[in-house]
Amino acid sequence: MTNFASRALKIEEQKLSLLDQTLLPHEERWLLMDSEEDLIEAIQSLRVRGAPLIGVAAAVFLQLQKDAGLKPEKLNSMALKIREARPTAVNLMICVDQFLSGVSGEQILFEDVDLCNKIGIHGAKVIEPGDNVLTHCNTGGLATVGIGTALGVIETAHKQNKKIHVFVDETRPLLQGGRLTAWELGKSNIPYTLTCDNMAGTLMRSGRVQKILVGADRIAQNGDFANKVGTYSVAVLARHHNVPFYVCAPYTTIDLKISQGEEIEIEMRKKEEVHGITGALGSYLWAPKDSPVFNPAFDVTPSELVTGYILDNGLFTREEFLKAFKK
Amino acid sequence: MTNFASRALKIEEQKLSLLDQTLLPHEERWLLMDSEEDLIEAIQSLRVRGAPLIGVAAAVFLQLQKDAGLKPEKLNSMALKIREARPTAVNLMICVDQFLSGVSGEQILFEDVDLCNKIGIHGAKVIEPGDNVLTHCNTGGLATVGIGTALGVIETAHKQNKKIHVFVDETRPLLQGGRLTAWELGKSNIPYTLTCDNMAGTLMRSGRVQKILVGADRIAQNGDFANKVGTYSVAVLARHHNVPFYVCAPYTTIDLKISQGEEIEIEMRKKEEVHGITGALGSYLWAPKDSPVFNPAFDVTPSELVTGYILDNGLFTREEFLKAFKK
Repeated sequence: MTNFASRALKIEEQKLSLLDQTLLPHEERWLLMDSEEDLIEAIQSLRVRGAPLIGVAAAVFLQLQKDAGLKPEKLNSMALKIREARPTAVNLMICVDQFLSGVSGEQILFEDVDLCNKIGIHGAKVIEPGDNVLTHCNTGGLATVGIGTALGVIETAHKQNKKIHVFVDETRPLLQGGRLTAWELGKSNIPYTLTCDNMAGTLMRSGRVQKILVGADRIAQNGDFANKVGTYSVAVLARHHNVPFYVCAPYTTIDLKISQGEEIEIEMRKKEEVHGITGALGSYLWAPKDSPVFNPAFDVTPSELVTGYILDNGLFTREEFLKAFKK
Repeated sequence: MTNFASRALKIEEQKLSLLDQTLLPHEERWLLMDSEEDLIEAIQSLRVRGAPLIGVAAAVFLQLQKDAGLKPEKLNSMALKIREARPTAVNLMICVDQFLSGVSGEQILFEDVDLCNKIGIHGAKVIEPGDNVLTHCNTGGLATVGIGTALGVIETAHKQNKKIHVFVDETRPLLQGGRLTAWELGKSNIPYTLTCDNMAGTLMRSGRVQKILVGADRIAQNGDFANKVGTYSVAVLARHHNVPFYVCAPYTTIDLKISQGEEIEIEMRKKEEVHGITGALGSYLWAPKDSPVFNPAFDVTPSELVTGYILDNGLFTREEFLKAFKK
């Protein structure tokens, strides 16, 4: 493969490196993916994260193994192991399947850049000048190879000089908003305000939020979708306050094999994540050590709460989405 | 004054000591309140917190100054300074005013214990055996002198052997749920599960929450109330999922001078609280240093979202509350 570098993924001399996102924004450390174990560990520990980026990283890694002459059976079993690293985001499964059916890692990589650009262009149409846009989790250049999904729309609208401002949910427990989205918006000079997840309601009540944009980890045929935990609460609050709520995703996030959100497996994660924070500066665990926790990584938002789907092939209302994808 | 000790307030040899709650659960350090500056600093830094406890601590401190022979004019100007330490919770103002009108600090102290017990007894009636109760922030023996408000109801229902289980919102940014409520429930052997604020929605959607109990920092005549930020989002989610939502408070939380929630001043706090966490283990700031933040300490929930008010003099539906308090 040719050399390549995005915000969080690098290919140099036939080796894949990933930015360790658990250390951001304090430290920018790149990790060489020497083996499938390295990659699986990086995915499971969220060193590499973001549904589209995980899918592309897997395809690129497999392509590099193939180029290095790994035998088809070995490549196949390696692919199936990587495919199961995390259960909720479908992009990993879809990208591995594409690779196994003959699509090259390089093609999958550059397609992601293209998909993000298209999402950005379609999505920017719903953004009006001066909008305050609220977003949850991280959906930017750290979550994709391209400019991002929801954050790609924000980036595009900003470049169109729409003078937008972004409210960033910090997104407990892993703080992808507070650590990553804040960092990315700062890099792009887009005005933003960081806030705790539980403050989104009072922001909406005061009329300070005009649009909500989120990403997705898996979308079912009926438009129900899984995304970072907390998305569902934001969607309920959006409905209560009549704030338009959009889901931004490439086609690789749509799982045509499942009819509704209930079928999406939700990954449950370890209690230490809720007990505190672990990152470049070490660990700070504030809860009593023996506290039992409830810690789903994702939640499912029913399509009834979605104003529109911003996909690479256009903007879909819920009805249009159902017409296009429901079997 | 006689010697006295509760979970977070101690009177020993005519001196007031307060437990430094910013250090919990890692360290139990008591702070001697030598001067009004000590007390104001403790209130503003949330070393002492909880609307009822702040009010009692102020009254006790003033009584001790009076007992020590401080002149009336000096006592008066000291009282007015302390009264303004934090703007949202009305208990501080009401307790200082009671003291200035001649009620002794000792009387205010023991009344709080009594008020909590009464709230507990009235509130336990709404709890059914086996209920899963969700709560936000901390409203227990650390927030009052007695058994608490919302957590006092939980404590009472638990003692009645109702076999309840509590879901604890961690309550960003200062983590009163994750640090304090978890610690108190552990001390009382009440089964609980700690969760991030943004997970309450998915818990309710799955049918795992039967009741929601919260405290209040100020209740207006029309039943609108201010409480720890995030309470409003919980109330909207409760309404969306038809989960009964109760506010638990003593009469000292009701501000008969204001007609509606819009009149409550909301304290805005510093950005470092959202940038990370500071406590007994030092500071861990994870957000980019220059991130602008939105950090209100409280939000206002309109009475339309309240199922009932659990007060020291009984359980009130919204209609009953309006009949009793609206001028």
